[in-house]
Amino acid sequence: MTRKITAAEALLRCAADSDVRVCFANPGTTEMALVSALDNIPNIKAVLGLFEGVCTGAADGYGRMIGKPALTLLHLGPGFANGIANLHNAHRANSPVVNLVGDHATWHLEADAPLTADIDSLARPVSNWTRRCGSPSGAVRDMHAAIVSASSYPQKISTLILPTDIQQAPVEYKRFAKSACETKVVAEEEVQRIAKFLSEGKDIALLLGRNALSLKGLESAAAISAITGADLFSETFVGRAERGANLPKVTRLPYFPEPATELLSKYRSIVLVGARPPVSFFGYEGIPSSLVPKNCRLDILATELEDAENALINLSTELNCKRTFTHGASHPNGRPVGALNPESLGQAVVAVQPDNCIVVDESATSGGPYASISHLAAPHTVLQLTGGAIGQGLPCATGAAIACPDRAVIALQADGSALYTIQALWTQARESLNVTTIICSNRSYRILRIELGRTGEKDPREKAHSLTDLGNPSIDWVSIAEGFGVPATRVERSEDLAKEIDASVKNPGPNLIEAVL
Amino acid sequence: MTRKITAAEALLRCAADSDVRVCFANPGTTEMALVSALDNIPNIKAVLGLFEGVCTGAADGYGRMIGKPALTLLHLGPGFANGIANLHNAHRANSPVVNLVGDHATWHLEADAPLTADIDSLARPVSNWTRRCGSPSGAVRDMHAAIVSASSYPQKISTLILPTDIQQAPVEYKRFAKSACETKVVAEEEVQRIAKFLSEGKDIALLLGRNALSLKGLESAAAISAITGADLFSETFVGRAERGANLPKVTRLPYFPEPATELLSKYRSIVLVGARPPVSFFGYEGIPSSLVPKNCRLDILATELEDAENALINLSTELNCKRTFTHGASHPNGRPVGALNPESLGQAVVAVQPDNCIVVDESATSGGPYASISHLAAPHTVLQLTGGAIGQGLPCATGAAIACPDRAVIALQADGSALYTIQALWTQARESLNVTTIICSNRSYRILRIELGRTGEKDPREKAHSLTDLGNPSIDWVSIAEGFGVPATRVERSEDLAKEIDASVKNPGPNLIEAVL
Repeated sequence: MTRKITAAEALLRCAADSDVRVCFANPGTTEMALVSALDNIPNIKAVLGLFEGVCTGAADGYGRMIGKPALTLLHLGPGFANGIANLHNAHRANSPVVNLVGDHATWHLEADAPLTADIDSLARPVSNWTRRCGSPSGAVRDMHAAIVSASSYPQKISTLILPTDIQQAPVEYKRFAKSACETKVVAEEEVQRIAKFLSEGKDIALLLGRNALSLKGLESAAAISAITGADLFSETFVGRAERGANLPKVTRLPYFPEPATELLSKYRSIVLVGARPPVSFFGYEGIPSSLVPKNCRLDILATELEDAENALINLSTELNCKRTFTHGASHPNGRPVGALNPESLGQAVVAVQPDNCIVVDESATSGGPYASISHLAAPHTVLQLTGGAIGQGLPCATGAAIACPDRAVIALQADGSALYTIQALWTQARESLNVTTIICSNRSYRILRIELGRTGEKDPREKAHSLTDLGNPSIDWVSIAEGFGVPATRVERSEDLAKEIDASVKNPGPNLIEAVL
Repeated sequence: MTRKITAAEALLRCAADSDVRVCFANPGTTEMALVSALDNIPNIKAVLGLFEGVCTGAADGYGRMIGKPALTLLHLGPGFANGIANLHNAHRANSPVVNLVGDHATWHLEADAPLTADIDSLARPVSNWTRRCGSPSGAVRDMHAAIVSASSYPQKISTLILPTDIQQAPVEYKRFAKSACETKVVAEEEVQRIAKFLSEGKDIALLLGRNALSLKGLESAAAISAITGADLFSETFVGRAERGANLPKVTRLPYFPEPATELLSKYRSIVLVGARPPVSFFGYEGIPSSLVPKNCRLDILATELEDAENALINLSTELNCKRTFTHGASHPNGRPVGALNPESLGQAVVAVQPDNCIVVDESATSGGPYASISHLAAPHTVLQLTGGAIGQGLPCATGAAIACPDRAVIALQADGSALYTIQALWTQARESLNVTTIICSNRSYRILRIELGRTGEKDPREKAHSLTDLGNPSIDWVSIAEGFGVPATRVERSEDLAKEIDASVKNPGPNLIEAVL
């Protein structure tokens, strides 16, 4: 006879048996059975975040790098709510994440105790799969379904709500057969149709997203480009892309709609390859939402829900491409010298970022120059802010570092955004993660100044200035980082920034560098 | 002819004309029209929070002190989501708050741009009133309705969603007549019924909540207690209460269900006076949700939705009470000496907290001893964590200080909880608020250790220990506070704590004291 264990332990065993390896947790009283059970599951590492947004952002970063879901462990409705912003980003990146949310005992819900909230309503906007576990015997089945849903392509967010009495109830654990996760493959006829179209047409742009930006996807895309003359673009913000010297160069669509549409204006057709139809980040009066120019048609090789990498590989075969590509430019020599500004900051990072590092880019306005030359840097993986919910960078870097302990992680981080989830630094210190955080310290929400300018407020008055200003007082980043246990330094010159990055990535453990702009 | 202004400016004018005086803001691109308009509204102060949970928690604290709503200004779904936890607390405290949330232009929503989210679904669980403004001409009417709903008793949360194109559209401003806000008064017959019941019965407890804990409410309750022999209790966590030496003493219901039910076991009846029926904070197996003992009946003078202060005043008149009450014990002399622990910490605060200060108590386990003797402290207003969503204390203190610039504010703050919304310190520094934050630094989620113990895990194993531990590394609170611009110090002895509190409350501007436990 099988030994009985708690449903909490059974569902965590199911997760371990489904290759889940990490749980990013900020638990409370209603999750204690799960917390206790974790100690019986040696294969799942437990990582504490001091705020739920750290946990969900870390799960996002982890999922982007590993391609399998991590668990989050969150406390009731308010705990889940604190994690929503980064789940929104994960959702937009199609990252696999499985959220476990404790709830009051089923019989206690009607008491409407202080922490009672409508978790289901909060979960739905950022979850593709939401279920409230209804019985101890169903807990393993529910966990399995949550993982399969999150893992199937396109990957996504599952949220499983677990009342305490169900967590605590004894059950027998029966192992599920590992499910094959679904993929959505583009039909052969579609590949042939696009092959014919590319062979015959001209002035065509391929807009790459999702796994079209993997190494294999990029190589195929570059080969296709070489043989057909189609140009390669990527979405402005990508969940994950391979990038760097000697890799195929892909032009990133500009953020603002005017230059994006201008850039696309010479094409007769845009073919989506794992990308969504390109739209403006915000709606501006008199400018259409769509970035597709008039007289340009939109074609689809793979939607953002289909396996774009596979489609590109098949397309290159269909076109008889050689699996070679035009090499990008090679890595520049020399480091910048002089005062820091966004340009020299970008040059310094490009000069010293190590081969095979992971760059988590939430640099907002300060990182534009970096992004425009990062195809010259040593080959790396870049993770960006996909959903616009700021406060993603430091948690995402934390999760990426846990996913890839042998790779250096560089977080290129806007100052205002960093403050949303600054508690992530502590998890980096506790877990001794090799994360180098570069704070682009311009002491303002600079993007909002630009947006104010677009509305006609070129010279913001008192309150508008105050609400977009991070000075008065200025944040002392070195002090804050050290308070969370992360060694830190402040630099004002680009040669010092390069030197500090270089030292940090070579040493274990996290560091923060305040780059004063 | 009336000059045309933007709908954003018109609705802010409506707010100003309805006596709204503060906007706690963390805006983004979709709120720029509102940000610009604020500069045309001299009567509304704009206060920047570096995280939305700071804004919503500050609005809660402000609303509790002023009794009128502040505005929050939040950015789309993810920005709103970051504010949900403290709106949950405000919701449970019946605080008046009006949230303004920008959304994409109406015509841009279908583009499903990266920041698009289901704001309505996120808003509903924490809003009593939610509306999506549908036209520029309706903006002022919607704002007016939002304010009236939030201001009417019981006060509550309104959320108004404002697409950018509607904010920017030109309208004529027509002033609304100020609406009388509704109150829910307890019927005379009900007061008479309870008066008769109290006169004839015995072993009766009055359970006070909401505005029964105002000065007038307490005075009436004490007079009623003196004449009828009924004992006075308050809910465990109250939104706002007057407390201190020479005020009527009210016994706070214990947090855990066993001692609470034990304490209530001698009563034959519990009469609710602005309180909800008492229930256990969490559901524990084998213990009922309700704290009302068997054989004890539950009566109602005023529900939590009715004007309890008014009901108490009428009840005391009905009972011919003299408007005098048994004085509580008076303020103790002398300060504690020796190493800090929760007992001496409580003694130190009680000894030095100044007359008429505001104590924001999110002290969790460390503050138990303080709460048990704070009726001996100088008279003060206490604001507590009503909804259990931690991270409320520092923002609430910030809002209370803005509401009452002439009163010292003391935030008695658990360390783990403080980290959720630590960014509030910066707003305290920028606004030079006289807030003294006392961090109860026990370097653990101590309550979870206790809760683990209740589940049988007396000696947590590795992961359970790790997930409830805030050491490794320890937070350096002085460093973090100084990083946000707040002067800070660390104390290990109770006489030093008393001395530092004393110095801090007498000086303008914020200070943080790490009290090492």
